[in-house]
Amino acid sequence: MERCALGLIGWGTVGGGVVELLTREAELFRERCGLDLALTTVVTRAPERVREQALPRNVTLSNRIETITNDANIGTVIHVVGGTTVAKDLLIACLKAGKNVVTTNKALLAEHGDELFALAAKHGRAIAFEAAVAGGVPVIAALRDGLVANRIDAIHAILNGTCNFILTRMEQDGMGYDEALGAAQKLGYAEADPTLDVDGTDTAHKLALLARIAFNARIPASAVRVEGIQNLTFQDIASARTMGCRIKLIACARRLADGLDLHVAPTLVALDHPLAAVNQNYNGIHIHGSAAGPTLLVGQGAGPLPTASAVLADVVDMVTGRYAATAVRFAFFRSTTVIPFLSARQEQTGYYARFITADRPGVLAGITSILSRHGASVQSIHQGNADAAGRATIEVITHPLLGGSFNAAVTEIDAAGLTTCPSTTLRRL
Amino acid sequence: MERCALGLIGWGTVGGGVVELLTREAELFRERCGLDLALTTVVTRAPERVREQALPRNVTLSNRIETITNDANIGTVIHVVGGTTVAKDLLIACLKAGKNVVTTNKALLAEHGDELFALAAKHGRAIAFEAAVAGGVPVIAALRDGLVANRIDAIHAILNGTCNFILTRMEQDGMGYDEALGAAQKLGYAEADPTLDVDGTDTAHKLALLARIAFNARIPASAVRVEGIQNLTFQDIASARTMGCRIKLIACARRLADGLDLHVAPTLVALDHPLAAVNQNYNGIHIHGSAAGPTLLVGQGAGPLPTASAVLADVVDMVTGRYAATAVRFAFFRSTTVIPFLSARQEQTGYYARFITADRPGVLAGITSILSRHGASVQSIHQGNADAAGRATIEVITHPLLGGSFNAAVTEIDAAGLTTCPSTTLRRL
Repeated sequence: MERCALGLIGWGTVGGGVVELLTREAELFRERCGLDLALTTVVTRAPERVREQALPRNVTLSNRIETITNDANIGTVIHVVGGTTVAKDLLIACLKAGKNVVTTNKALLAEHGDELFALAAKHGRAIAFEAAVAGGVPVIAALRDGLVANRIDAIHAILNGTCNFILTRMEQDGMGYDEALGAAQKLGYAEADPTLDVDGTDTAHKLALLARIAFNARIPASAVRVEGIQNLTFQDIASARTMGCRIKLIACARRLADGLDLHVAPTLVALDHPLAAVNQNYNGIHIHGSAAGPTLLVGQGAGPLPTASAVLADVVDMVTGRYAATAVRFAFFRSTTVIPFLSARQEQTGYYARFITADRPGVLAGITSILSRHGASVQSIHQGNADAAGRATIEVITHPLLGGSFNAAVTEIDAAGLTTCPSTTLRRL
Repeated sequence: MERCALGLIGWGTVGGGVVELLTREAELFRERCGLDLALTTVVTRAPERVREQALPRNVTLSNRIETITNDANIGTVIHVVGGTTVAKDLLIACLKAGKNVVTTNKALLAEHGDELFALAAKHGRAIAFEAAVAGGVPVIAALRDGLVANRIDAIHAILNGTCNFILTRMEQDGMGYDEALGAAQKLGYAEADPTLDVDGTDTAHKLALLARIAFNARIPASAVRVEGIQNLTFQDIASARTMGCRIKLIACARRLADGLDLHVAPTLVALDHPLAAVNQNYNGIHIHGSAAGPTLLVGQGAGPLPTASAVLADVVDMVTGRYAATAVRFAFFRSTTVIPFLSARQEQTGYYARFITADRPGVLAGITSILSRHGASVQSIHQGNADAAGRATIEVITHPLLGGSFNAAVTEIDAAGLTTCPSTTLRRL
């Protein structure tokens, strides 16, 4: 039986899941793949902190990275450190010491992936990151290996369980945004400061990693245009329902004629689309490949054990040597390909707009005429009864058109005094 | 650029998909993973047959397996041959000649996997079979590698697109079984002789392969208890709808206290279960793992290009050497573990029963008293109005109980003269 010494950097929630799984399932790894996975060293900022979880005997606990980097027995390091500064230094130290690294840090790879993958290659080592996207769902492997024979036309995905939980509670329980966020925090699905989740940044980081693999290209995180869910109202949720849709925070990566469309935004998803059924804190990834057609993966995108499940899948790939063959081979690790990215103006999408108007003759005609002048082909229009204050809501759904044209039309409608407040727009999947 | 000479045995529908993908996407494999995948030899029973598809220049076409087995340049053979006799001989010939084999043949591996995997190991070669289960959906890799850190508690899956298409048309379009089968045949989703699809055999073969990986055990195809969809009526479909369910041909592999429950049967699936949304000719696999929780994979389970997509994923794994590390390592290839299999009597499941009764006092009391005596706890009962002939339909849904107890109760109810025809039963997911 081959003994594989493992180091762990970071002993927080997810690190605890890794410790638990390595301890609890040691026999499983022996039985299933003849591997004796032995956690030998844990490095954490505060080793003295009192914790509920005990480390197995013989595990060295330290706050010095050298405890791992100087240990020649450790071939693979599990890197569960957040942020992009200290986390980056620690990852680099491991590579320079000749260790392979399995990381959960999507922000780090999305921001500094080019540099880090190049450094790994220079040292003949590899960085694996299955856990960085969609937690326990093996989507990195599916996209990289399972769909290797496919040109990827499009990925549409729900990649943030916090946002999905909030949107689900708003829709199913009629909660407002703040109340749903509070419920997510109470259940541990949202952090005390949920900014990076709800503003779409976390989703954008994950999308950048998926797009790197799908399109074999350099995808800077800044190439992803991002809108969050913070400004969604109950009215948006209710309107979606009326139209037979749900609002999801959709990450979209599409290959269009002029370049890649990469965006994260609250989006209307028809109830019969597979992603509409991905609710609560689940993640879902819908991939359209040229040979396999559409493939959907759904599962737990976060949490200590699902994330540890993905981490240990990478560890097994590392210690069996399979991942080295992957890292040496696959272009996305070292891609210098630059594909043009579409701006919001160039994005070709179907849109929804809600106009709050004064209930007087000519408003609807004014709106439709401006839309038409900007090339927006209307798929459906719904005009509600005027409320007590004499305001009527007009909702419009368009066929796909350029984002620039659509936004210009809405701006012109608002400027023309046809509306009583700035209009609300959403994309349609 | 590394040139990998490939042989192909079988040039039918799926073989044609492999030829198409290798020809069309040669550049993709070069770009994505630095591989020059070169189809050099095709062996088929009738090379002289006139076909729509042309082979690339320089490809040798032959009806002699030696054209491949004697060619030292060919390291990996793609085996797309149906049946379990000639197909077996051809696969064995390849292994003996020192070739790795990628096969799509689920029946062959389900029936003779132990022998074939052992032979491969003896010759230091490997057999890959991603395409054998759920076509383009990378479920073998997900179960084997992505979820390697999980004890698998249960798999519930829709693994036969033909059956799923028929059931979808019966439900959505109110077609009878024969009409829906005809529609499937017209679209190429069902063969002229659809027996192995509709009677559940094909699904059982695929389930046996998934269970082998999930439970690291020998799973003879005969361990799977099988019922098909041939006897389903429109009444069954309509009853399911009334109860907020759909009927799916569900393959189930569960680890229960006394052993493995392996069965394929038409099953009531609640509309809010993820598999209820897997319709038309799609396949879906719902896996419950101890760490990742529930994971769902959905996609095209058949067809030339989706199947070729999976074949070529295996080919890339083979020629990069990654699959050798897998085959050498993973226990399920050579498992001698024998786990007890549960009989229908031992299966613990919730059931549905439909009793056609004479509409007279005491019938309902008689039925519930017999159910109760056999330990069946009733979850709900629905009694319809009597029809013109004075027959009333009583539908019962039970909480989970032993199959033996439930079947004994229904047999006793029918024998007691409480029903006017043999009663219909279905499992519930």
